[in-house]
Amino acid sequence: MKITVGVSNRHVHLTQQHLEILFGKDYQLEELKPIHQPGQYASKSFVTLETEKGILENVRILGPVREYTQVEISKTDSYRLGIAPPIRTSGDLKGSAPITLIGPCGKIFLKEACIIANRHIHVTKEEKQKYGWKEEVSVLIEGKKGGIMHHVYLKESEKSYFEMHIDTDDANAFCIENEEEVTIIDC
Amino acid sequence: MKITVGVSNRHVHLTQQHLEILFGKDYQLEELKPIHQPGQYASKSFVTLETEKGILENVRILGPVREYTQVEISKTDSYRLGIAPPIRTSGDLKGSAPITLIGPCGKIFLKEACIIANRHIHVTKEEKQKYGWKEEVSVLIEGKKGGIMHHVYLKESEKSYFEMHIDTDDANAFCIENEEEVTIIDC
Repeated sequence: MKITVGVSNRHVHLTQQHLEILFGKDYQLEELKPIHQPGQYASKSFVTLETEKGILENVRILGPVREYTQVEISKTDSYRLGIAPPIRTSGDLKGSAPITLIGPCGKIFLKEACIIANRHIHVTKEEKQKYGWKEEVSVLIEGKKGGIMHHVYLKESEKSYFEMHIDTDDANAFCIENEEEVTIIDC
Repeated sequence: MKITVGVSNRHVHLTQQHLEILFGKDYQLEELKPIHQPGQYASKSFVTLETEKGILENVRILGPVREYTQVEISKTDSYRLGIAPPIRTSGDLKGSAPITLIGPCGKIFLKEACIIANRHIHVTKEEKQKYGWKEEVSVLIEGKKGGIMHHVYLKESEKSYFEMHIDTDDANAFCIENEEEVTIIDC
């Protein structure tokens, strides 16, 4: 079965409380453009990530605000920041890496906030049932630097656009680009 | 069968003629430390890579000098430089990407010099025959971002240290490090 790839660059999700520390009281995220997942969007706002060993500027905030603050970076980014974030599903932040977020009005140090997102496919419960999928699948990528990605997590939500999300390291290693099609081969 | 991984960061191979344009007449590469392939080494010298769209500084020269000048970068690097190098075996430079090399004494524009190296395993003819290998194999990588790398080219030479070479994009995507062991699964 074919599926479209969405390549996620490093980004941040924020709580309203953290957003206001970084950008000022009553600050609201503004939508730059929607992303495929229903209701979610790339905002017009950026933060700087800082650790003792490095910084990464112009990291985009995705909206809307969430119940938790989370920083998603690639392994390549983690070497620039000198931290070792675990490979995790969104929201699973226990034991994740510490990081400082800096905005125009303030900064926040978070003891647990930074992860490398696992490869995942957005699905509805109905899609999972229909295809007999359990926790994860494998995905075949064609091409001279092709191969198979194992442990592609099936991320279930009520409203979901059927799409596979990978980070920039996976995209660049396999030489695939946003909106390309790959093949689910294994349940 | 297990094999050890060597992660290749971006690097340059030079002819003696090009070395002298960049570093001055009769310049000789000095060895910083040997690499596993017999007779080859990381030198103490660096160049800057330049295109119309970007630069990458401190790119190490590997020694000894060769019959051809070649620049090996990752897909991630290629976005920084705004070029689209093909995925190639070392020495196969026809139609490869243009790039400018800058040293302390001069610069050279090369119309065909820059590639993304294919994943490859260094083998002797005897090893290839012993295991019945043809042109390429597949390699299994364990772990949360594990999977299978297809099209791993078998690079035959008379004197060879049995090792798999991948670029930093592959290493970071699969979360593997230098000297880790992976498994050849397919001939």
